[in-house]
Amino acid sequence: MKKRHLFTPGPVDVPPEVLAAMAEPLIHHRAPDFIPYFKAANEGLKYVFQTRNPVLTFAGSGTAAMEAAVVNTLSPGDRAITVEGGKFGERWTEQCRAYGVEPIVLEVEWGTAISCERIMETLRANPDVKAVFLTLTETSTGVLTDVETICQAIAETDAISVVDAISALGAERCLTDPWQIDIVVAGSQKALMLPPGLAFASISPKAQALVAKSKCPKYYLSFEKALKAFAKDDTPFTPGVSHIRALCVAAKMIRDEGIENVWARHARLGRALREAAVAMGLKVFAKNPSNVVTAIEVPAAIDGEKITKILRDKHGVTIAGGQEQLKGKVFRIATLGWANDLDVVAVIGALDMTLAEMGHSFERGAGLAAAVRALSA
Amino acid sequence: MKKRHLFTPGPVDVPPEVLAAMAEPLIHHRAPDFIPYFKAANEGLKYVFQTRNPVLTFAGSGTAAMEAAVVNTLSPGDRAITVEGGKFGERWTEQCRAYGVEPIVLEVEWGTAISCERIMETLRANPDVKAVFLTLTETSTGVLTDVETICQAIAETDAISVVDAISALGAERCLTDPWQIDIVVAGSQKALMLPPGLAFASISPKAQALVAKSKCPKYYLSFEKALKAFAKDDTPFTPGVSHIRALCVAAKMIRDEGIENVWARHARLGRALREAAVAMGLKVFAKNPSNVVTAIEVPAAIDGEKITKILRDKHGVTIAGGQEQLKGKVFRIATLGWANDLDVVAVIGALDMTLAEMGHSFERGAGLAAAVRALSA
Repeated sequence: MKKRHLFTPGPVDVPPEVLAAMAEPLIHHRAPDFIPYFKAANEGLKYVFQTRNPVLTFAGSGTAAMEAAVVNTLSPGDRAITVEGGKFGERWTEQCRAYGVEPIVLEVEWGTAISCERIMETLRANPDVKAVFLTLTETSTGVLTDVETICQAIAETDAISVVDAISALGAERCLTDPWQIDIVVAGSQKALMLPPGLAFASISPKAQALVAKSKCPKYYLSFEKALKAFAKDDTPFTPGVSHIRALCVAAKMIRDEGIENVWARHARLGRALREAAVAMGLKVFAKNPSNVVTAIEVPAAIDGEKITKILRDKHGVTIAGGQEQLKGKVFRIATLGWANDLDVVAVIGALDMTLAEMGHSFERGAGLAAAVRALSA
Repeated sequence: MKKRHLFTPGPVDVPPEVLAAMAEPLIHHRAPDFIPYFKAANEGLKYVFQTRNPVLTFAGSGTAAMEAAVVNTLSPGDRAITVEGGKFGERWTEQCRAYGVEPIVLEVEWGTAISCERIMETLRANPDVKAVFLTLTETSTGVLTDVETICQAIAETDAISVVDAISALGAERCLTDPWQIDIVVAGSQKALMLPPGLAFASISPKAQALVAKSKCPKYYLSFEKALKAFAKDDTPFTPGVSHIRALCVAAKMIRDEGIENVWARHARLGRALREAAVAMGLKVFAKNPSNVVTAIEVPAAIDGEKITKILRDKHGVTIAGGQEQLKGKVFRIATLGWANDLDVVAVIGALDMTLAEMGHSFERGAGLAAAVRALSA
């Protein structure tokens, strides 16, 4: 008997009640049957985003919503700040360039986060910058950025703040309105506990003012079209009907637990995983680690690819390897979405057995002991 | 007890075995588990498209794949031909304009199809035209266009042919390679019998040559990125994992029935519906009607909106009203995807009872008699 577990930073394991909603008979998106679902999904999103701004839903991957944030607020020739400290920060740069927006790229060492000071210095030196693109949790490195401080500082300027919270929203604290984040982008297959296929973007009034002026070309991802339809509980193009029904179920689970409790749970799981890793003689890669995905350095004597393979083939546990410059150098374990204390115990157990098999020298069970201690704290 | 039936031109009723696949546990899209599904889905698509060209899959609605066809083959300032005889033909024009492509718009009366002659005359008069955008079945009017003849004629020129087959692929005959169609665009929620959320585009070598030269901006919808990943059984961004698993099931159903039989079934259903409508004293709107969606003129004395409402509230049957200039003037019944002879009998039965209730003067049961005769033919 093989039980499978996803500890990847999306897709994540989806709760059976959400999967069941994915299998509900189809309804037509412009028939009255659908409207209560669409409204409930949108209310759920506002709660998870902690915002009163409209949260638009696109059929697409998270990258589609990132692109929407660029093309709906900027024009060719505009300048923007991007932060490169991992693969997903780089994506903002690439998307700006694809549309003729000139990024001022702030490089940070992979594994570290950008400081508010550096962002604000750059903004002061370049007062024409229209937008600052940030990444709440950089999935490739496991780094958490202090968008709370940064976005509140940006709010004092003419620029808008745009946060890729795809792998974090609903797991790490992200208070869209209190932190004055103009656009928050998210995806369905992470803490929202759905299959991949929906992308989301919340839009503040300050961002909406830019939308009216933006000259980048767009059609499918047009905020203008989507906002106009949203005001009438509609979408400009056929929405992901099944996903939206499933989102109602997932959002209710989050609401029932309470978003503060959801954040606290992710914090507990992330801390337990990091403490377990250290107790097993491993090193956490990120200086400012996120709770949603933990990048762990591959010990010198060990083949990183093989860790992933043994975990998968022997223990049914799927984790992620390193990306780009971290390929073979880290492995990444996500404790994200439908994940609880016992899932962390399970994955540490699998890691203990795997590392032992590979000849890594460590005290057997020490990771598990550290995990349960941290989980009880 | 309320049994519900969708007779809308997408979403359509999804077979339970496909819905069950939508509820399968998630797998990671870059783990070996996923590759057999991705390959099977892609083979299934090639069969349904009748092509050896790559068929790219995007997480998105059909409109996303239409936009991809524009932005990946053309550059701002390029000229293209579009055909406006309905809402979806107009979408091609809008998408071209959104990206600075100059459309030469050929208007045809709603309810009629463009002739090959008119396309070819326009092409001869404008030899710089790079692409001709067509609509196989115009969902707003129920018109079928003879893309077989038109695309074979376009193949003799330097222009590429691009066919929106979103509501038709897998229902109406559409032989991508034999008819030399350069790009065929399709969506999941129609004859492919899936929930909305995936969009597809097949790309011929002639179209691929344009991709290399295209200067319209793109990122998420980039054919170049998608083709590069496709060659390694991968996608550039997180794919719609659950939809792709479900597509394997739906594509197998189509293959088991045989695509020729699937086309013949849709032809039989469409003909029966049209003959039933005429027998009930109704008029089919389209001069060259498609088999996937039949637009029926609302009788002068009858409130079109009310037909839709009674069908829905009393009989559990969801159909579509008219769009844009046809709002209130036609109602549209789709016999598409998971639809069989008895579904046509059922919808005609519901229509008979509804029209009788509304005081339409016709011979009760005549539509049903015409339907069963046509279905037996």
